[in-house]
Amino acid sequence: MPKQDPIRPTDDDARSLARALIDSATYGALGVIDRESQTPMVTRIAVGTDIDGTAVTLVSDLSAHTRALKANPACSLLVGEPGDKGDPLVHPRLTLQCRASFLRHGEDGHAALRNHYLASHPKAKLYIDFGDFSFVRFNVTSALLNGGFGQAFHLTPADLQLSDRLT
Amino acid sequence: MPKQDPIRPTDDDARSLARALIDSATYGALGVIDRESQTPMVTRIAVGTDIDGTAVTLVSDLSAHTRALKANPACSLLVGEPGDKGDPLVHPRLTLQCRASFLRHGEDGHAALRNHYLASHPKAKLYIDFGDFSFVRFNVTSALLNGGFGQAFHLTPADLQLSDRLT
Repeated sequence: MPKQDPIRPTDDDARSLARALIDSATYGALGVIDRESQTPMVTRIAVGTDIDGTAVTLVSDLSAHTRALKANPACSLLVGEPGDKGDPLVHPRLTLQCRASFLRHGEDGHAALRNHYLASHPKAKLYIDFGDFSFVRFNVTSALLNGGFGQAFHLTPADLQLSDRLT
Repeated sequence: MPKQDPIRPTDDDARSLARALIDSATYGALGVIDRESQTPMVTRIAVGTDIDGTAVTLVSDLSAHTRALKANPACSLLVGEPGDKGDPLVHPRLTLQCRASFLRHGEDGHAALRNHYLASHPKAKLYIDFGDFSFVRFNVTSALLNGGFGQAFHLTPADLQLSDRLT
């Protein structure tokens, strides 16, 4: 690990890597602020994407992180899981800082997202239609890409757009 | 996933599983509150334990999470990584809610923790003695164990003590 960890200028390789980390994520670590204690709470969640490339998850009203997000939508999502091989701290990962928005049954876009999500998460069919389950969309305010030691980049929401929107 | 996710009464199996998740962790997801935006920020960190079993990490003053913890020690640590096999959302994991405390070079306990940490993290020898690196101890205020679907437990700091302290 270098003693200095300067932020590098964002380039297309960094944008592509960040986008790939979102698109390939099946799960991640969600950080919310617990309402009572005002302390962060990090939990593991399933991760998918909406049609526009926004990271999404499916949550139950019964979950502690859902209650926290309803009280305070400021949150963070870490994606880029190292698996079993190599040094986890060298594996690329992406920290998204976000405002969460809920998309509930019957709301505009829910049906389309439901179909899109089930294509990548077929097991969610078991509970996706329960009344207490909603989608959460992670609307990015800023992002930090760590591509490994000495490979840190600050990214903007525009840097994370789907590539067909950049052309 | 069951529609209800009730918290079960804590038993010794839950305590043992939680303790094992801390003891076997080599890395985890740290959630802090970014000072400027008051938004959570989740990053991947190395994880070890102090001699008393407290989860610890080693941080650089140059890191964003270090700056956040200095401004606000409320944080969360998620341990229990699923690796490559099976459904990540069935794999047991432990959410710790904590107050972080720093242990710097020359302070009481630093030398002992340095030796203890290097035994489990020998690669840290490359940077552990740099002036900008400190230990952070994660002093647990509460914990949530998710042992898989329908296996949720609230744990107290006492539930997480090393087993030789329970006897």
